[in-house]
Amino acid sequence: MDQRIHDHAEVLVDWSARIEAGDDVVVRVDDGAHDLAVAVAEKLGERGANYLATYVSDEVESAFVRSHDGDFDQDPDFETAMLERADSVLSLRGKSNAAEKAAAPGEKRAAYKQSRTEIKARRMDTDWVSTIHPTRAHAQQAGMGIGEYRDFVYDAVLRDWESLADEMANMKEILDEGSEVRLVKEDTDLTMSIENRTAVNSAASVAYDSHNLPSGEVFTAPEDPEGEVYFDVPMTHDGARIRDVHLTFEDGEVVDWSAEVGEAALEDILTTDEGARRLGELGIGMNRGIDRFTDSILFDEKMGDTVHLAVGRAYGSCLPEGEDGNQSAVHVDMITDVSEDSRMEVDGEVIQRNGRFRWEDGFEQE
Amino acid sequence: MDQRIHDHAEVLVDWSARIEAGDDVVVRVDDGAHDLAVAVAEKLGERGANYLATYVSDEVESAFVRSHDGDFDQDPDFETAMLERADSVLSLRGKSNAAEKAAAPGEKRAAYKQSRTEIKARRMDTDWVSTIHPTRAHAQQAGMGIGEYRDFVYDAVLRDWESLADEMANMKEILDEGSEVRLVKEDTDLTMSIENRTAVNSAASVAYDSHNLPSGEVFTAPEDPEGEVYFDVPMTHDGARIRDVHLTFEDGEVVDWSAEVGEAALEDILTTDEGARRLGELGIGMNRGIDRFTDSILFDEKMGDTVHLAVGRAYGSCLPEGEDGNQSAVHVDMITDVSEDSRMEVDGEVIQRNGRFRWEDGFEQE
Repeated sequence: MDQRIHDHAEVLVDWSARIEAGDDVVVRVDDGAHDLAVAVAEKLGERGANYLATYVSDEVESAFVRSHDGDFDQDPDFETAMLERADSVLSLRGKSNAAEKAAAPGEKRAAYKQSRTEIKARRMDTDWVSTIHPTRAHAQQAGMGIGEYRDFVYDAVLRDWESLADEMANMKEILDEGSEVRLVKEDTDLTMSIENRTAVNSAASVAYDSHNLPSGEVFTAPEDPEGEVYFDVPMTHDGARIRDVHLTFEDGEVVDWSAEVGEAALEDILTTDEGARRLGELGIGMNRGIDRFTDSILFDEKMGDTVHLAVGRAYGSCLPEGEDGNQSAVHVDMITDVSEDSRMEVDGEVIQRNGRFRWEDGFEQE
Repeated sequence: MDQRIHDHAEVLVDWSARIEAGDDVVVRVDDGAHDLAVAVAEKLGERGANYLATYVSDEVESAFVRSHDGDFDQDPDFETAMLERADSVLSLRGKSNAAEKAAAPGEKRAAYKQSRTEIKARRMDTDWVSTIHPTRAHAQQAGMGIGEYRDFVYDAVLRDWESLADEMANMKEILDEGSEVRLVKEDTDLTMSIENRTAVNSAASVAYDSHNLPSGEVFTAPEDPEGEVYFDVPMTHDGARIRDVHLTFEDGEVVDWSAEVGEAALEDILTTDEGARRLGELGIGMNRGIDRFTDSILFDEKMGDTVHLAVGRAYGSCLPEGEDGNQSAVHVDMITDVSEDSRMEVDGEVIQRNGRFRWEDGFEQE
């Protein structure tokens, strides 16, 4: 077995999930993630944890959902009881066919998902971590051969997370202490307030309240954006391709928008509700192991030399006690490349220029 | 997908497990049983049941057991809690490699199994059913090509179970009412008492207290055997091949034994404890879908035109209230072919001659 699968399992179990002896660990094994499951079980054994493997297959689920009359039982207690007693849930994503969900009608799928609200909440109450095992189906989705895709995934996952977490702590400190962020690049000059907001150091570990491996971003919940912004990184939302988005904000709301491709899809997003025209997130990608866009938000938004903004719902962890932040049914990330001809300022001081951070070699004062 | 996989799922869900709307069903999916899992999920959806799939892989388990220090936590409650709330547990056996268990040391495997005693008991408290999906690994073990092996498995599984259950009810009635069984064939003339014993109609359904699919045998717990018996069907016990066993019983105990191959292994069995030299089971194979020996007891002992006896432990379900029956650490089935030159009598009346039962065409009175 590829040594990197063992390394991946070690990062997942030790750095991300912080598994200790006696922990009850549910391992959710996707139908293409067998090899990672073996490596994870080995690490769990070493740590003296207990495991229970569940089988997650879109093909199995679609067969069930399709043949069911659609009146699903709400949160069957044999599953909630298991999750209530679990310390951690490790989701090993790795599909055999990324299109398999389409085999069940959307309405029934939605009803099934809805019937499992409590099950999902119980899972989120644990020290959960979601990661991805590079399968041929995911490689195909990313438009790569399997060898190249494996390199891509492991470069993103097998970081020196401790050192990256320290570096990201710098950025968190700047954002926590700052009041206003300004982003300047081609067709972009946007200011937004981050006063009283708390940034999250998303270092791919439950110890940092970060639940995806890979991760590598610092994000906060901005408000009152003013100005314009251009997103040049391709994205796909609900199956629709969207390219080259321009947004103009006035008094904190999107007042004008355009996209070279997928403008109707963009309009659908922005007109979902009032909150969909306000900002929910400002994120700074800091994982330099991710070196290209693959149209997968799990990777794209963490990429070094990128900044992303989300319209819609804000994360509670960024908000002061008692504040709800921006509310919306949507949270849609859009990414802009800041590797060249760009700068980000916090309270007038340049923090990042042409991709380099203030504390890095190569950062040039003007 | 092979239509027989769908038919298998239907027999399992409807005939064997008697799944109803609202049932909470744990589906244990072996690493080679994906296709059957899809078909079973489809049937469970049709019936309006709820499913939770667990992943059973000897490779995953061996990795865990091997790396663990061996001091396993006893019956972690996230797993017992799930099983306590389950109505049924369907085990879809179907390995990718039938030799994978050997990858963990036997002592640790035994300790792991021991630590899961309560988990197993909770599973046995449900309406559990175990079945087998024909994988290449199992075909290899049976010494067949995959196509031939699939035919073999589905011929055994896809019976008219209702009609077979009725036929087996005849045999159960005869054994329940009878006092003494006599078996006569080459090198065989054995009598045994079945007075006050209850036979089990093992019709591959929880409704018959029968938990394996395929099944197709009627068995009871005989005692006081006298005489000699010859087992001509090949068997493998704990990895040891045993062939052509002769046993001689006096006063209910084996007093003389021999085997053409594996006599030492036979001696190991018979000298395990006192109960290992007495009988625990008399079984009559009635599944004519099984047409050859494959050295797999799940199939062999159900084969039509065979009778098997087990030395060792008796099943409680055959015994009168309050009686313990024969006790032993072992229960080892040995099979004899009764298709030719043989007869079985109950209280002096011939019930089966040359494989034909009394109620069948072709049965000849002498």
